[in-house]
Amino acid sequence: MERKKIAIVGVGLIGGSLAIQLHEKKLSSKLIGVDANEGHAKKALELELVDEILSFDEAIQQSDVIVLAVPVDTMVSLLPIILNKIDDQVVLDLGSTKSQLIEAIKNHPKRGRYVATHPMWGTEYSGPQAAVRGAYENKAVIICNAEESDTDALEWVKHMYKKIGMHLLEMEAKAHDLHAAYVSHISHITSFALANTVLEKEKEEQAIFELASAGFESTVRLAKSNPAMWVPIFMQNKENVLDVLKEHIAQLSRFKESLEKEDNEYLMRLIEEANKIRRIIK
Amino acid sequence: MERKKIAIVGVGLIGGSLAIQLHEKKLSSKLIGVDANEGHAKKALELELVDEILSFDEAIQQSDVIVLAVPVDTMVSLLPIILNKIDDQVVLDLGSTKSQLIEAIKNHPKRGRYVATHPMWGTEYSGPQAAVRGAYENKAVIICNAEESDTDALEWVKHMYKKIGMHLLEMEAKAHDLHAAYVSHISHITSFALANTVLEKEKEEQAIFELASAGFESTVRLAKSNPAMWVPIFMQNKENVLDVLKEHIAQLSRFKESLEKEDNEYLMRLIEEANKIRRIIK
Repeated sequence: MERKKIAIVGVGLIGGSLAIQLHEKKLSSKLIGVDANEGHAKKALELELVDEILSFDEAIQQSDVIVLAVPVDTMVSLLPIILNKIDDQVVLDLGSTKSQLIEAIKNHPKRGRYVATHPMWGTEYSGPQAAVRGAYENKAVIICNAEESDTDALEWVKHMYKKIGMHLLEMEAKAHDLHAAYVSHISHITSFALANTVLEKEKEEQAIFELASAGFESTVRLAKSNPAMWVPIFMQNKENVLDVLKEHIAQLSRFKESLEKEDNEYLMRLIEEANKIRRIIK
Repeated sequence: MERKKIAIVGVGLIGGSLAIQLHEKKLSSKLIGVDANEGHAKKALELELVDEILSFDEAIQQSDVIVLAVPVDTMVSLLPIILNKIDDQVVLDLGSTKSQLIEAIKNHPKRGRYVATHPMWGTEYSGPQAAVRGAYENKAVIICNAEESDTDALEWVKHMYKKIGMHLLEMEAKAHDLHAAYVSHISHITSFALANTVLEKEKEEQAIFELASAGFESTVRLAKSNPAMWVPIFMQNKENVLDVLKEHIAQLSRFKESLEKEDNEYLMRLIEEANKIRRIIK
């Protein structure tokens, strides 16, 4: 397929990393950056993530494809405005929650031009300087409610994701949000809470710094993640996240009980059960 | 210093990885393996982690240094027996808890020959085949109650750890066990509980497998850890682990509350607080 003029709204970690891939895989004839944060816009240009920075309106006017990579609350207010302004361009988003966004434009006359996607990649860092080359490769991308998108728009988006090395899955938005709560959102909550636990109780920070092993770092690293991105995700996916979080607290309480009762066998069973995660992650 | 004949009791992940380093750094003139698990003993020999396998008694008789790398409950029963058998050899352990072990041999006439240590390294795998080359390098090792060890024994153990690239810290056993609960033990409990949460609630394992991102993997990987190693650690460090675990459940409950009340500001504050972990881990 021929190269497209692509506007990326939000040139931070997610949008910036996509920009690098779009350029490298020769998907874009031009990359236009849009960012409400002037510092980020400037930085994205400086790092050559995008070819130029334009205003929101100019960018939409001059692009064949518009990619939304902003926090999911901004997404919900921005997407209907974009659909109002476009003609037959393709619009897609890279957000971590899907139900509320899809609901927001369900009856929009331009609904078909929009493709709802969630590439399963990210890091705990943010901003254009956190953009990573080779991101997204060999990861999954979920396309939600694909049947509501126009065939040509859907095809181009699939083509794009395949070209940058992702494998495609299709799912209804509700199923997506449930699974995302399990395989991504709860990990972030446990990590944030673990950081707060250690910071609250362990006053000798020097000791943590010196002793912290790789195990600690791996369970706590997500706690560095950006609140502006995560607060709206948790709120939009509140019901699912609460369900999983309640179960997680119940599971932790079992460990607590086994220790309080000094019940070695029970503790052994709990850990053996947990070991079954080997079936899922290598 | 001249090379020593070193016996490693327990040639699994921890003992096996140390064996590789002892050999590579020319600290050992001979490496003798001891393991109650015959399969592990055979495998360790096959992998050339050790030069020969001997019985417990023979190994003690023929060694200058005896390294204990067995689960911490076995350690508590084995250490007094070893001290009964030795003459002036050096004995050290690599266990993750220290108070109970040190207490167990506090008044032993050979107390001075023993050095209590905890090298801060491990992985979620176990057994001799999990041994890693270059393990321990650039990590911290804690020596506990150093003043209770004989000077020559202490000096040799410090020499050994420096030679394999570790940086030394000294600490009382009680302080060690408290810090270990924060920077290692709680991470394992959260990871086990997270695995159980997901396995319990998410019946569509295929979905987890396909969607699981790097974030999920990093928070859940410790859940693959060996129960035979971890049950005794948690039990021996029960008081500290329970303290931290209760605080962790309280912190998770704050996230739950912020979601239930849809209190964006509170959730934002909780995450901003967690972000301060950046001060401690890069």
